[in-house]
Amino acid sequence: MKGEMKAIMKKKPDPGAELVTVPIPKIGPRDVLVKVKATSICGTDLHIYEWNAWAQRRIKPPRIMGHEFGGEVVEAGKDVTFVSVGDHVSAETHIVCGKCFQCRTGQAHVCQNVKILGVDTDGCFAEYVAIPEENAWVNDKKLPPEIAAIQEPFGNAVHTVFSEDVAGKTVAVFGLGPIGICAVAICRAAGAAHVFAIGRKNDYRLNLAKKMGADTIIKSNDQDVVKLIKEATGGSGVDVSLEMAGSQEAISQCFKVLKFGGRVSLLGLPPDKITLDWADDIVFKAARVYGIAGRKMYGTWYTTAGLLKSGRVNVEPIITHKFKLEEFEKGMQLMHEGKCGKVVLYP
Amino acid sequence: MKGEMKAIMKKKPDPGAELVTVPIPKIGPRDVLVKVKATSICGTDLHIYEWNAWAQRRIKPPRIMGHEFGGEVVEAGKDVTFVSVGDHVSAETHIVCGKCFQCRTGQAHVCQNVKILGVDTDGCFAEYVAIPEENAWVNDKKLPPEIAAIQEPFGNAVHTVFSEDVAGKTVAVFGLGPIGICAVAICRAAGAAHVFAIGRKNDYRLNLAKKMGADTIIKSNDQDVVKLIKEATGGSGVDVSLEMAGSQEAISQCFKVLKFGGRVSLLGLPPDKITLDWADDIVFKAARVYGIAGRKMYGTWYTTAGLLKSGRVNVEPIITHKFKLEEFEKGMQLMHEGKCGKVVLYP
Amino acid sequence: MKGEMKAIMKKKPDPGAELVTVPIPKIGPRDVLVKVKATSICGTDLHIYEWNAWAQRRIKPPRIMGHEFGGEVVEAGKDVTFVSVGDHVSAETHIVCGKCFQCRTGQAHVCQNVKILGVDTDGCFAEYVAIPEENAWVNDKKLPPEIAAIQEPFGNAVHTVFSEDVAGKTVAVFGLGPIGICAVAICRAAGAAHVFAIGRKNDYRLNLAKKMGADTIIKSNDQDVVKLIKEATGGSGVDVSLEMAGSQEAISQCFKVLKFGGRVSLLGLPPDKITLDWADDIVFKAARVYGIAGRKMYGTWYTTAGLLKSGRVNVEPIITHKFKLEEFEKGMQLMHEGKCGKVVLYP
Amino acid sequence: MKGEMKAIMKKKPDPGAELVTVPIPKIGPRDVLVKVKATSICGTDLHIYEWNAWAQRRIKPPRIMGHEFGGEVVEAGKDVTFVSVGDHVSAETHIVCGKCFQCRTGQAHVCQNVKILGVDTDGCFAEYVAIPEENAWVNDKKLPPEIAAIQEPFGNAVHTVFSEDVAGKTVAVFGLGPIGICAVAICRAAGAAHVFAIGRKNDYRLNLAKKMGADTIIKSNDQDVVKLIKEATGGSGVDVSLEMAGSQEAISQCFKVLKFGGRVSLLGLPPDKITLDWADDIVFKAARVYGIAGRKMYGTWYTTAGLLKSGRVNVEPIITHKFKLEEFEKGMQLMHEGKCGKVVLYP
Repeated sequence: MKGEMKAIMKKKPDPGAELVTVPIPKIGPRDVLVKVKATSICGTDLHIYEWNAWAQRRIKPPRIMGHEFGGEVVEAGKDVTFVSVGDHVSAETHIVCGKCFQCRTGQAHVCQNVKILGVDTDGCFAEYVAIPEENAWVNDKKLPPEIAAIQEPFGNAVHTVFSEDVAGKTVAVFGLGPIGICAVAICRAAGAAHVFAIGRKNDYRLNLAKKMGADTIIKSNDQDVVKLIKEATGGSGVDVSLEMAGSQEAISQCFKVLKFGGRVSLLGLPPDKITLDWADDIVFKAARVYGIAGRKMYGTWYTTAGLLKSGRVNVEPIITHKFKLEEFEKGMQLMHEGKCGKVVLYP
Repeated sequence: MKGEMKAIMKKKPDPGAELVTVPIPKIGPRDVLVKVKATSICGTDLHIYEWNAWAQRRIKPPRIMGHEFGGEVVEAGKDVTFVSVGDHVSAETHIVCGKCFQCRTGQAHVCQNVKILGVDTDGCFAEYVAIPEENAWVNDKKLPPEIAAIQEPFGNAVHTVFSEDVAGKTVAVFGLGPIGICAVAICRAAGAAHVFAIGRKNDYRLNLAKKMGADTIIKSNDQDVVKLIKEATGGSGVDVSLEMAGSQEAISQCFKVLKFGGRVSLLGLPPDKITLDWADDIVFKAARVYGIAGRKMYGTWYTTAGLLKSGRVNVEPIITHKFKLEEFEKGMQLMHEGKCGKVVLYP
Repeated sequence: MKGEMKAIMKKKPDPGAELVTVPIPKIGPRDVLVKVKATSICGTDLHIYEWNAWAQRRIKPPRIMGHEFGGEVVEAGKDVTFVSVGDHVSAETHIVCGKCFQCRTGQAHVCQNVKILGVDTDGCFAEYVAIPEENAWVNDKKLPPEIAAIQEPFGNAVHTVFSEDVAGKTVAVFGLGPIGICAVAICRAAGAAHVFAIGRKNDYRLNLAKKMGADTIIKSNDQDVVKLIKEATGGSGVDVSLEMAGSQEAISQCFKVLKFGGRVSLLGLPPDKITLDWADDIVFKAARVYGIAGRKMYGTWYTTAGLLKSGRVNVEPIITHKFKLEEFEKGMQLMHEGKCGKVVLYP
Repeated sequence: MKGEMKAIMKKKPDPGAELVTVPIPKIGPRDVLVKVKATSICGTDLHIYEWNAWAQRRIKPPRIMGHEFGGEVVEAGKDVTFVSVGDHVSAETHIVCGKCFQCRTGQAHVCQNVKILGVDTDGCFAEYVAIPEENAWVNDKKLPPEIAAIQEPFGNAVHTVFSEDVAGKTVAVFGLGPIGICAVAICRAAGAAHVFAIGRKNDYRLNLAKKMGADTIIKSNDQDVVKLIKEATGGSGVDVSLEMAGSQEAISQCFKVLKFGGRVSLLGLPPDKITLDWADDIVFKAARVYGIAGRKMYGTWYTTAGLLKSGRVNVEPIITHKFKLEEFEKGMQLMHEGKCGKVVLYP
């Protein structure tokens, strides 16, 4: 497709981003071009915007930002076989090689040659985005575009929650960013017996966690997380800890509150090294610990679609702010303050 | 404890049962005596009452019937260590040897030397019942006794549903006796994306399945089960089949409606041999098939308690009839007709 | 590559096959052309050769037969990315769509749109064969071509054996065709405590099973399989049954000899319906039953390569006959009689 | 049984131990008395003997030491049901409560009220030892008593190795104490494709690991473990890391050498806190990490017996020294120097 489009671009290796007009992307024979209907802001986008240490190492400007979206296919390359013009799609944002050990054994989410949409390739904070057909996830046409957009981060939560099942079990969710809040909602929808949601100071998000189904919310900066959870579980601890904060404090606590023989799933990414009481927290505890990266391609997407299409999880309350694409700086500000759930931009 | 009590007894090897007065059971050093607050009727009790072929082979009258109950411990043997007088309890009804391979490897539910309460030993259709401490499941005191009673059959459903997880998945439940209806409710509470409930002619139970959360109810005697489910799942079939009918028709269908690579859990007990399209239904389909017996001791009970105590599953609608113990014949008649969910008797 | 080649072709819808001279196959942009160094005969090839009922329904002559091979890449399409000219390769013979639910969730071995090499497309009983790059499995250059060839059927055995692990367990292998014999060898290499190998009348193959590591061989036509195995396991039965015969007798027995709580993996394809004592054999037994199709793509291939390259399994004794491609009829005759392990043809 | 016996006792809260004469232990109604035929020295015994910080906190002298043994039942309490006088037995050394969540859900190895034989109760460095029947493991009478004795530590290795299967996989074993060396032997017997054995300076044990089947031995104090293993695995790392050293160095390395999506099992107990590159080593790596404590009761014992009785693993070379009970100080000295495999004492 010819023409120009609006996009939010990281133009220079500095904080901030710019609204630019650029050519609509060209697609290859196995790609599709998608008209973006709604796109949402991820913590990663904020890191790129604020130009933190990770972003400085990883991002090569100029780069169109963004990777979470819902849109409609408007053009398909000549070798495209299963996606059609008119399909509503979102994208799995890991663009994988298909040839490494991991890709060839059902673990493409840890592909050794991965590129990430909006990080290593131009993204979806734009009117149009080009993606490999392989990465397209075809949505039910009834799914609103903003909910389609947040399937990607919701999928991170799905992948984390369902390392093993949670029905009838007690679960502690550490870290109440949007993904942590999605995890709370998913645990409830999947029959968890009791969900503890642990945040730090952010009342906005603690309240949102409550609204999405947390049975108990705990503020780690002024409550004794370990004592509270131990008491509430008759001294034995929770069956499952989900670590989505990525801090030393949360990581330590997620093991301390765990029942002997319990399960921990780790999504949070600490910037520094982490120190643990190894013998007591993992070995003697007979913990089962899972590192979680991305979403299973595409098992996680099927589960996600199953939970959303059926209405088992209603994620609408998690979408707290909606702006025009041009107003992206408002969204970045809210994300910076943490006074929001998901922020959606409409191109 | 000395004294006499009322009990429902199979006195002779004939159809029927009698209300009798007998001594309160004596307990051994590792047993507890429970005052029964509520007891519910199982299909097995009906088989014993009606004296079918299985009952004729297995039951040695005189025998006090019944195995599902909620009650309170009134006496504890001298070697009892973890249950106390005053505890509210139900019973795992498999009294196991503790020494066979299965007992020693976490599979006591298929103990090779099992005795079953109310079948091989005197049961709980009575004012008091004696059980080994080992078999006592201590209930939350807030749990109503009739709900405590139905944990045992509910546990069969829990065991069947959770052979693998169901969140975000499509599930077909074949057979809408009380356990099938419990399975429908559990699948919904555990986030199944779509639950098909398949019964035969019994509108009462189809409606109850609907009430407990079935998304689609199908009447197998006048609807094409396989066609309907295939169409509703885009031609691919369900992720999970739960077989609780035990008929040739249901067993065949539970495989026919299954997605390639799907899971089948089998609780239904057909009286006769079963014939299958082996190559197409199991081998090429890469089905994972699980035979289900009893409840995991005691993993299933923890999950059950987790689902009930939290209110994730509200089983009250499944308890459709409540009678005095003396009125047991009314309950047997309703069970015979299938015009009921669970029938509870109060001694 | 231009030129002609020798090939074994099913030319007409009749029993038999012909040695023909045909053009070397053309390759597409994502295919590779392989010079075949060694190819082996599968039971499926015999069915096509003998033109049984299945072959009559499935095969559309003219068709070059064969799917098991080891060879060297001599030409690569322009979009090929991870296989190079000079690579030694074998092929996964399931050519899959990549877009169905199964392909997108790590179960491509049950792809809903599969084509099979040498069945639905021209095969490798020829000097050259064209395959999609996607299906190429790159071999260690030290692996002899005839061993490379039999990785495909060996992989069926690997997939069957390792549905769950076997170390320290007792295993019964029913059916001693070449795949059954591979299974015996794999179980031994993986630390199975005792391997029972059950054949019918074929002494040649019973002896080969013995040679490959069976601890006990049983001739089902004149020994009481169930009694013998029950006695040898102290009455409890085996931990694992592997069904590779596909007969009513073997399928019944594989359940009868199974321990309560044991595992059955089913690879054998019976031509007719199968009848079972459903309640006793599966449900009460709490059996875990797995239908097995093809090989996991490509987890099974990595395990296979791991077992062969390391020498943990020495499959050379299974290759009992070696002929020139032109002598294929000798091989078919041996396969018909069952007086062979794997028969290899060299183009 | 009346009379006196020799025993090795920690009499005072100081380093060392004494050969004493004490009454033969009395047994309770559910215990058995075992005449010890052979007993072996564990690292824990050395800690008690040397009176390290852990021992000072945990041990209350006087205490008869020792927990690994093979012997014969000479007396059985009146409520004993499945063990008989004359049976050859070893002991599971975790004496569990049977009533906690873990005991009731197949995880008795992490019982919350565990007592350990020879640590919290009198042990087997003696002519006789009393154990609960529940803890008796009946051995095949053909199993030599010294091999019967080392089933307990061998079982730790079995539990660690088989958190998931190893057939066809690459495995790195960190820490070559006797349990690490057993793990090497078990991996080989279970079909691991390549076993790396990593020790520090101890040539004696590196050579023993080689003898027991290590494909590559690495000396971590003068070789670059991570570089060597990465190179040997084509850059991708091992499928499985088994951590049995319990040092910061080994724990870090066991993650660094791990393939993305690989498995780590942790048996080693570091005395201090451990620091990790959390994001890179666990989260992004999508590692599956299992803390291992004790042996599964009694699944691990069945696997152990299966591997030993069948001869799949020959552990005789691991038993490097045999002394009379009276010579226990020689054994402690060898253990201190690490110039031994297992040291066996004969009362």
